[in-house]
Amino acid sequence: MTLLFITFLALASVYRVSPGLGGAWIMDKYEKIVELARRRGFFWPSSEIYGGVRGFIDFGPLGALLKRNIEEKWRRTFIYEYQDFIVEIETPVIMPEPVFKASGHIEHFTDMIVECLKCHRMFRADHLVEEATGLKNLERLKVDELNKIIEEREVRCPECGGRLSEIRTFNLLFRTTIGPYEGNVGYARPEAAQGMFTSFKRVFEATRRRLPLGIAQIGRVMRNEISPRQGPIRLREFTIMELELFFDPQSPHCPVLDDVADEAIMVRTAERIIAGNEEPIKAEVGELVRRGIIKNEWMGFFMGLGQRFVEEIGIPRDRQLFIEKLPEERAHYALQTFDQTVWLERWGWVEVAGHSYRTDYDLSRHMKYSGQDLRVFQEYKKPRRVSKYIIRPKMEVLGPMFRGRARDIARAIEERLKDEEAVKELLESGHIIIDGLKISRDMVEVRIEEVKETGRRFIPHVTEPSFGAERLVYSALEYAYTEVEGRIVLKLPADIAPIKAVILPLISDERMLRIAEEIYRHLKKHGIPVFYDTSGSIGRRYARADEIGIPLAITVDGQTLEDNTVTVRDRDTWEQVRVPIDHIVGIVLGYSRRKITFKDLKARYAMRGSAI
Amino acid sequence: MTLLFITFLALASVYRVSPGLGGAWIMDKYEKIVELARRRGFFWPSSEIYGGVRGFIDFGPLGALLKRNIEEKWRRTFIYEYQDFIVEIETPVIMPEPVFKASGHIEHFTDMIVECLKCHRMFRADHLVEEATGLKNLERLKVDELNKIIEEREVRCPECGGRLSEIRTFNLLFRTTIGPYEGNVGYARPEAAQGMFTSFKRVFEATRRRLPLGIAQIGRVMRNEISPRQGPIRLREFTIMELELFFDPQSPHCPVLDDVADEAIMVRTAERIIAGNEEPIKAEVGELVRRGIIKNEWMGFFMGLGQRFVEEIGIPRDRQLFIEKLPEERAHYALQTFDQTVWLERWGWVEVAGHSYRTDYDLSRHMKYSGQDLRVFQEYKKPRRVSKYIIRPKMEVLGPMFRGRARDIARAIEERLKDEEAVKELLESGHIIIDGLKISRDMVEVRIEEVKETGRRFIPHVTEPSFGAERLVYSALEYAYTEVEGRIVLKLPADIAPIKAVILPLISDERMLRIAEEIYRHLKKHGIPVFYDTSGSIGRRYARADEIGIPLAITVDGQTLEDNTVTVRDRDTWEQVRVPIDHIVGIVLGYSRRKITFKDLKARYAMRGSAI
Repeated sequence: MTLLFITFLALASVYRVSPGLGGAWIMDKYEKIVELARRRGFFWPSSEIYGGVRGFIDFGPLGALLKRNIEEKWRRTFIYEYQDFIVEIETPVIMPEPVFKASGHIEHFTDMIVECLKCHRMFRADHLVEEATGLKNLERLKVDELNKIIEEREVRCPECGGRLSEIRTFNLLFRTTIGPYEGNVGYARPEAAQGMFTSFKRVFEATRRRLPLGIAQIGRVMRNEISPRQGPIRLREFTIMELELFFDPQSPHCPVLDDVADEAIMVRTAERIIAGNEEPIKAEVGELVRRGIIKNEWMGFFMGLGQRFVEEIGIPRDRQLFIEKLPEERAHYALQTFDQTVWLERWGWVEVAGHSYRTDYDLSRHMKYSGQDLRVFQEYKKPRRVSKYIIRPKMEVLGPMFRGRARDIARAIEERLKDEEAVKELLESGHIIIDGLKISRDMVEVRIEEVKETGRRFIPHVTEPSFGAERLVYSALEYAYTEVEGRIVLKLPADIAPIKAVILPLISDERMLRIAEEIYRHLKKHGIPVFYDTSGSIGRRYARADEIGIPLAITVDGQTLEDNTVTVRDRDTWEQVRVPIDHIVGIVLGYSRRKITFKDLKARYAMRGSAI
Repeated sequence: MTLLFITFLALASVYRVSPGLGGAWIMDKYEKIVELARRRGFFWPSSEIYGGVRGFIDFGPLGALLKRNIEEKWRRTFIYEYQDFIVEIETPVIMPEPVFKASGHIEHFTDMIVECLKCHRMFRADHLVEEATGLKNLERLKVDELNKIIEEREVRCPECGGRLSEIRTFNLLFRTTIGPYEGNVGYARPEAAQGMFTSFKRVFEATRRRLPLGIAQIGRVMRNEISPRQGPIRLREFTIMELELFFDPQSPHCPVLDDVADEAIMVRTAERIIAGNEEPIKAEVGELVRRGIIKNEWMGFFMGLGQRFVEEIGIPRDRQLFIEKLPEERAHYALQTFDQTVWLERWGWVEVAGHSYRTDYDLSRHMKYSGQDLRVFQEYKKPRRVSKYIIRPKMEVLGPMFRGRARDIARAIEERLKDEEAVKELLESGHIIIDGLKISRDMVEVRIEEVKETGRRFIPHVTEPSFGAERLVYSALEYAYTEVEGRIVLKLPADIAPIKAVILPLISDERMLRIAEEIYRHLKKHGIPVFYDTSGSIGRRYARADEIGIPLAITVDGQTLEDNTVTVRDRDTWEQVRVPIDHIVGIVLGYSRRKITFKDLKARYAMRGSAI
């Protein structure tokens, strides 16, 4: 995954800017969207009839479509276009304990928790202290440091005023048992990434056996947050869209960097944050890589692509900011991480993706814990001749010197001198200490031999972009949400809009109904999600369609009966054009793939009237 | 979900026919497919580097595409076509305990387990006893009955010969804790269905507020099998494609039944099974509904549609059989269930879908457990005048008779006589017993009044088709698997084949490479999964493509340089036609949507040569 999990938690403290203001009588945008989402079927709290469970949401019919469209756009952007070296896989949510021992999650994937000794409520310790004291960024503190603040500042339970327990760490993995044996522990994955690491060798072998190799996955992940409170923004179960790009650290060049090199992004660097300067710099991805601000080309590539992707779902570039994580904020596996954030009205800069340079951390750990060789062998274009030291301990010297121990010592010398550096030391200084013994040059025969090497065996390095689908769904809704003349217009980009067109017979005339139904059937046959609406005035029906972001409204009216044309109305401008019925499927398909715009339609077909 | 879970377990016992025969030197089809799947990247055991965990598989690049294509075909078949009353939602995998108390899973979703007192291995009791004794269908027995058989037949541990413990029940839900409070139990859902039931009211309100309403979902589910051993067939985590169709039990008519009414299916009915006759009957869905063999029209509709869907992924109708569950085999929520099975070489008839009539079981239970009113109100087209009994206990009679108790008794009478049946009883027999007291006609004033009713409030009934994606992936592979001239050809239907075309420059000529790459890029731009292969002889490249089921091979050869045409080769017949390069995108798109066949191509373009 990415540092999503850290920022998920840090959100409220690090990035929060305006903590949900607005008087009781003014709904903020978040509240308006939640209301719309519930009423029209985008999303709502899960298991609501049982009072709901924090951190879980259901996607209703419109939300599920919107989410799937965003996922599909991610695939188009990150996979289809680069399918010669990026593939998608699907691995289970539940994985066995050894995986997370190796990955470091059992040790590191924790939060600090504190319990009220009186009412026994539990709280995330850093958040609680931040709220009580006004201090910031306490997430970075150690348990002892935070305990000390609680003691010194006499922080009490915010609910009942009771005294607080000592802080303990709480692991955020959902734990379960696999099969009937109690000891057989499994966890729900907190990131898809481990599925890519544990299957890396298999995927490598089954595909073209060359680097770079990207392995992507879209799937559910679970993080057992202590007390999530931000609706679709902080969830215990959510959908991750994740990609692990495996590359040779000796040739870290990204051959497709040019596709996005001129993408200008805003970055708040760790260096500047530490120096107290939060002013972002704005520069092209290519330049940031050249200047070493982004530590490798692949990461730069995915950051550029990531900005383009998020822009395409409706969030302008100037509302996107890449924030570099400080060293102490980074996950245990990352050498560098940028949070890709978008500006949200209630919370300020909110992470929607993490871009991490995971190095060979994960594969190395899995090698160590599984005992499997996860290195790849990359053949040279042609075999290379390389010089190698050939070592032979001279038994004729060692024997008389060390007697019974001679054979063991010879073995230790052989072992030690497999390391080329050790041989060099011996040759240069004339001796080397092995197991406390001084071994001199004359005890060993050293020859140099030319050998043929056909390739190298090494552990690939990994760069990872990782997106949270639910946050993108919410962000897309927030940026699409508009009020025009007192009613809601959801200006979602046409390719992610859940419903592509609504068919409206102007009045309840039998012939109009028949034609409208025919158009509706025709669009359905093409697998296009469409609505058919006959109830209420045409104005009310337009309004209902605008509210859920239907890009095109197709109206069958009196003229249709005469010349087989219908009007097509644009959700965003309320302009209309009249087009032949036969063109409708092509128009709706082209429009919902963003291959044609309303301007194109106006240019092609005669204009008629303006807004209703 | 469906009875998937019962059959999942029952598989080995009920349906197994040929238990993986084949000598050590002959691989059966299952083994061949597993070998191919691993080598080419369809699927393999999950967490393999740690020795794997039974019941979990990874989908590699080709498998993930194949699975997604099958899911998308399911959507096209069951949702897009019927989108006016069927919608798709997405709900979490983890749900809180009350949901599964209400659903009955905590009580009923269990298997019998037995432990060896010596080596402490655990076994599914019914399977163990079946294997030890040769008895069959023991799953239906009660704990006591099975314990008795173990005792009488002296069944021992198959591993070490040790004595066995008493049988206990083992719940198959994966259990976890939500948040930091120990008591806050959650479970991974064993079926998607509960997400549809708990959100039903919301979805109903957010959509058209009318029945019928279908709510579909594709997602992961988990079932903690005791000891799964059949690769992709019996999994602890798998993908369900599930649909709950809510209808008014008073108007159970399915208006789209005609779409599939003439679909002839093979059915083994419970009645005949009980009579010892396993011979299936073959009849049209419409007829089976009329004869009452299928208990409601909606179930018949989905069975017909289900057969068509499974046929379209490559399993012929005569290899599909609907097996009705016996009453004692049915899940606790079902009034009737048909398993939709397909014939697999190793296991015989294997369930790939379950069709269940769940009645109002789930919604009623959730109403009871949540205290929420989940009934729907359906307005009549116009208000109806209905006659209603108006009841008034005569205090002037009751008072003197019962004195201090009179008021309570009056209340009890009122309460009881809200039930129209009770009023009728009173009127007909002249009296009725209420709380042990004989209440006679003269103690009550009964009037009949005409009232206006605008509609009815009731709990909808539910029919559910539920498909297992992984089993369909495996079944599609088994039916596609063919050996021709000693090598593998995977004859997957073009629309579910993972890769749609392979581009092959005939020889390593620079101009051919350039053209081939251009075609490749062009197809990628359209989001089509394609391969580009330059390594080895053309014969070997065709073979590699056939093995993973690529429907079309496009070869750039000498003639291409002259006239801008390429050859297109059909995977299944090895025939070729020569077509203009400009037509390639259209051909590949049309072919992979099964809108054109190779016959069409031959008819349109001049034929050339035959198999290579």
